[in-house]
Amino acid sequence: MPTLLPRERAARGAATRAPRGGERQPPLALRQGPGVAHPEKERSRRWRGPPPPGPGSSPGPRAAPALPRRSAAGRLSPGDAGPEMAAARPVLARAVLQQCLSARLQVRPPENGSEPEWVEIQRGLVIYICFFKGADQDLVPKIVNTLLNVKLSENESGEYVSLLDLPGNVLIIPQATLGGKLKGRKMQYHANIEKEKGLELYSQFVTLCEKELAANAKCMEAGVLVKYGTYGNRQVLKLDTNGPYTHLVEL
Amino acid sequence: MPTLLPRERAARGAATRAPRGGERQPPLALRQGPGVAHPEKERSRRWRGPPPPGPGSSPGPRAAPALPRRSAAGRLSPGDAGPEMAAARPVLARAVLQQCLSARLQVRPPENGSEPEWVEIQRGLVIYICFFKGADQDLVPKIVNTLLNVKLSENESGEYVSLLDLPGNVLIIPQATLGGKLKGRKMQYHANIEKEKGLELYSQFVTLCEKELAANAKCMEAGVLVKYGTYGNRQVLKLDTNGPYTHLVEL
Repeated sequence: MPTLLPRERAARGAATRAPRGGERQPPLALRQGPGVAHPEKERSRRWRGPPPPGPGSSPGPRAAPALPRRSAAGRLSPGDAGPEMAAARPVLARAVLQQCLSARLQVRPPENGSEPEWVEIQRGLVIYICFFKGADQDLVPKIVNTLLNVKLSENESGEYVSLLDLPGNVLIIPQATLGGKLKGRKMQYHANIEKEKGLELYSQFVTLCEKELAANAKCMEAGVLVKYGTYGNRQVLKLDTNGPYTHLVEL
Repeated sequence: MPTLLPRERAARGAATRAPRGGERQPPLALRQGPGVAHPEKERSRRWRGPPPPGPGSSPGPRAAPALPRRSAAGRLSPGDAGPEMAAARPVLARAVLQQCLSARLQVRPPENGSEPEWVEIQRGLVIYICFFKGADQDLVPKIVNTLLNVKLSENESGEYVSLLDLPGNVLIIPQATLGGKLKGRKMQYHANIEKEKGLELYSQFVTLCEKELAANAKCMEAGVLVKYGTYGNRQVLKLDTNGPYTHLVEL
């Protein structure tokens, strides 16, 4: 029997709390459509009957452990391993992805009385990106291709499609802190790429994202945008989501 | 010579763009104080002289590669390895940490005409948490201790201190999607913990965070709060940051 949090206890006792305001509600299509399993949405749907035995947040049934499958070559396919085994090879790039309804990022801080400068996107994907030592320009097309094509963006029918298929906007945030490794009570950044090389890869990453969106008819028609933070700045960010649906991608 | 982004090109050409509004400015103390290296802030400070050769986002000089040091026992200290080598053991819990000025999370969606319910924190730490198969209750104190004590929160003097020392508020968000592993163009969640066990660990995690803050005199005096999302819900989130300073912690 799982421990009940105060909120669950209250819910079972039919107690109600007044909402604290902020009633913005996701569009119906975003909450109810069928499609690829959303780990959290899936759970919500499954627990809709009264009284729910308790909410869960692990992915839905499609994410149940599968028996390892072998490819034609007889090797285990990646992703079929049971526990989350970290690969024993250097990570070259780490990205955290969050879906957003809108996001606003400062690209120039206020200085000498000047106003700060911001960029903003509407619905789309926020990409926090960090490169590690050993990363080179060959990696850039791979990671751009991966991030723009992975099916994590929920369309109006509640299906998960790629950012290019949504189509959605992109906000790219250089985030060197993602390279941090815990040591004692502090983070160390020994594995982060050197700054000049990092700027170069970041610039290529941004340019290639822009190019890919510009080459995509759906994106061009919808007029979606690529915006990006200034490498080296503090990334002052305001984010509004309908569920960030946070994912980690490492290459 | 690193590739120049359009923004850098414009900056070098002395072109200016009108700010798009949103002039909220970080408190001076937060931008100028000395202290533990902030990978991005450090860079900003170092590039202040005109004209900068180009911004960088890799961590500052303190994060430069160090020669491997040996502990008294003659073993290599963790964190001293050059490349970011992922440990070849199962990951049991994954957390993404973001600093916030305020954050607002829906904990009950609108249903049958009822208003949604939200929780909100002011300045502090947003913890997105995901447990993997194999995690058990012994892990909970370890990860709570780690997350509340790691020095990632910037105080008024610009030093990085722990959340408990800040002291700051905590918003805990169950985020099963963090367990995703890329396969082709989709994410799979095979390694995620089973839902009931996940709820149990999440509940223990929340309870222990509350307990730790309640046991901390500084936190009690400041009246900081622990808020948390409803396990299984879509985590509708609005986040306002002075730089999310995003970190990944795995145990």
